[in-house]
Amino acid sequence: MRIVAADTGGALLTEDYEPVGLIATAAVLVEKPYRTATLSVVRYANPFDYDMSGRQAVKDEAFLAVELAREVKPEVIHLDSTIGGVEVRKLDEPTIEALTITDRGKEVWKDLAKELRPLARRLWEETGIDIVAIGKSSVPVRIAEIYSGIYTAKWAIDYAREHGKVIVGLPRYMRVELRPGRIRGESLDSREGGLFGEVEAETDGIGWELYPNPLVRRYMVLEAWRE
Amino acid sequence: MRIVAADTGGALLTEDYEPVGLIATAAVLVEKPYRTATLSVVRYANPFDYDMSGRQAVKDEAFLAVELAREVKPEVIHLDSTIGGVEVRKLDEPTIEALTITDRGKEVWKDLAKELRPLARRLWEETGIDIVAIGKSSVPVRIAEIYSGIYTAKWAIDYAREHGKVIVGLPRYMRVELRPGRIRGESLDSREGGLFGEVEAETDGIGWELYPNPLVRRYMVLEAWRE
Amino acid sequence: MRIVAADTGGALLTEDYEPVGLIATAAVLVEKPYRTATLSVVRYANPFDYDMSGRQAVKDEAFLAVELAREVKPEVIHLDSTIGGVEVRKLDEPTIEALTITDRGKEVWKDLAKELRPLARRLWEETGIDIVAIGKSSVPVRIAEIYSGIYTAKWAIDYAREHGKVIVGLPRYMRVELRPGRIRGESLDSREGGLFGEVEAETDGIGWELYPNPLVRRYMVLEAWRE
Repeated sequence: MRIVAADTGGALLTEDYEPVGLIATAAVLVEKPYRTATLSVVRYANPFDYDMSGRQAVKDEAFLAVELAREVKPEVIHLDSTIGGVEVRKLDEPTIEALTITDRGKEVWKDLAKELRPLARRLWEETGIDIVAIGKSSVPVRIAEIYSGIYTAKWAIDYAREHGKVIVGLPRYMRVELRPGRIRGESLDSREGGLFGEVEAETDGIGWELYPNPLVRRYMVLEAWRE
Repeated sequence: MRIVAADTGGALLTEDYEPVGLIATAAVLVEKPYRTATLSVVRYANPFDYDMSGRQAVKDEAFLAVELAREVKPEVIHLDSTIGGVEVRKLDEPTIEALTITDRGKEVWKDLAKELRPLARRLWEETGIDIVAIGKSSVPVRIAEIYSGIYTAKWAIDYAREHGKVIVGLPRYMRVELRPGRIRGESLDSREGGLFGEVEAETDGIGWELYPNPLVRRYMVLEAWRE
Repeated sequence: MRIVAADTGGALLTEDYEPVGLIATAAVLVEKPYRTATLSVVRYANPFDYDMSGRQAVKDEAFLAVELAREVKPEVIHLDSTIGGVEVRKLDEPTIEALTITDRGKEVWKDLAKELRPLARRLWEETGIDIVAIGKSSVPVRIAEIYSGIYTAKWAIDYAREHGKVIVGLPRYMRVELRPGRIRGESLDSREGGLFGEVEAETDGIGWELYPNPLVRRYMVLEAWRE
């Protein structure tokens, strides 16, 4: 199976580890044996001006995933929204009403569907590729999350090179490592069976430290600075 | 403490990783230090004709566990059903009604109790051994689950030898490894403190690959083929 | 950030792994990189005469944490009670009523607040240090939990030296190791990013074994005996 998935993660943090805004939306192409991405793309947000409601993230993910999918022609697109694996092109009002989610979630999806349903329908009509809102159950979505963390580290390096120093929070239970010419990221959850990713990056002249976020158990913090 | 436990796990999968049916019910004898089984037995189901409602699994587990218990005389039998560690022989209608489980769960247990309560009562009267529905809290139940995964791998080898190729899904966060003359299985959850199992098996002439199920995070897939 | 946290853990167990009572309340000073404690103190309870309702534990933790905080002057104190990170000094009746916790939890906190609110207010007025009920989200609280497990092992050694033999249960998914002159404890949850602790202890002449508690998955048991 060839699957495209997208997810948004990584946050700029204050000195007190308070989140300022999210940093990176990553879309990935995942193929057997489903442990890493064959291909990845990123779209950076402006963390200093970020809508933390979560609605923006799902839209960014859908559009970036569709862009990648039109290029690499997967069998299906996985989005990180847990509404039972429904195809997004089928999300009319009665279908949304019938979902076993909160009333608040239904309102959000009625709003999201206005933009995402036409997007999904067009993609399906033109390519036969479906977008499914499978959420946390999908391994490709988790791999996209790991890549959003790796790209967050890349963003942090560039930011530190320009501004001197930065603190970012990575997505849940993952770590990154700056190596010569690249950044490697790995899941810290042994139950996931060894998910990881790698992205090329200029890491020279950057000092860094990775440690647990003291305020949010199971999330790591990356500090980077110009040396 | 000497504990007998049973669990059912491992599923035949289609090429698209859709479950067809469950494969193996394993019963184990677990003794201190409670990391693996001293003894294990298996009963294979027919995955091509399987009642996925879950009711069949609990019955198979109870009967297989009782069979093993009559042989090895443990202090207690653990079943994988989370109804608060109640003794199965005490499950009359008022007791079931008083359980803090869903109405659906109560209906299922009223039905199950018709067969399992006499079984449990007879065992207790004849041997003093109790059957308790302790569920996920029990380490022996988890070890039985790991053995059901190992036996599923054994079933897959035999199936591949006969039919050429097969894909099976293992129970939650565990891996298997085919070694000369045996199959080893291990929990992938580091928090469990190193649970594992081993079963003798003819592994010659079989190729295999283990990787994450892309559709169900934290579950591994085993592919096996005749070489 | 310099954070003081406290937690209670470790239980004396019967031969059948039934809990008798809790053993150790630990308070720790945690500083960047937040993987272990810079300083730790312990107060032992009498496990043979222990109020298992949990109310006693929170009080012991608050008083021990305040004692340590007056000495080491942290920026904040973290308590293991999940009421959304509220400052304890602000817990008047209307604030408690507005918490999104169970009615039972509200009654408990109304009672606890009688002693803890004056304690928190005095500390804050005199030192500017706040006590927040942040609970499981806090890494320092988890480090305090790991230290309560290490001190439980120390208590077990002393008990075994005097009485010959003892069985204790450690806090969730952690292990301990007796080494010459010290006890080391580590989280077994890989997602936490490597939390650990160490305490000096006389370990000579003591035999020990660590294994999974068969009745409570993800919890380890320590047996210690005089050699």
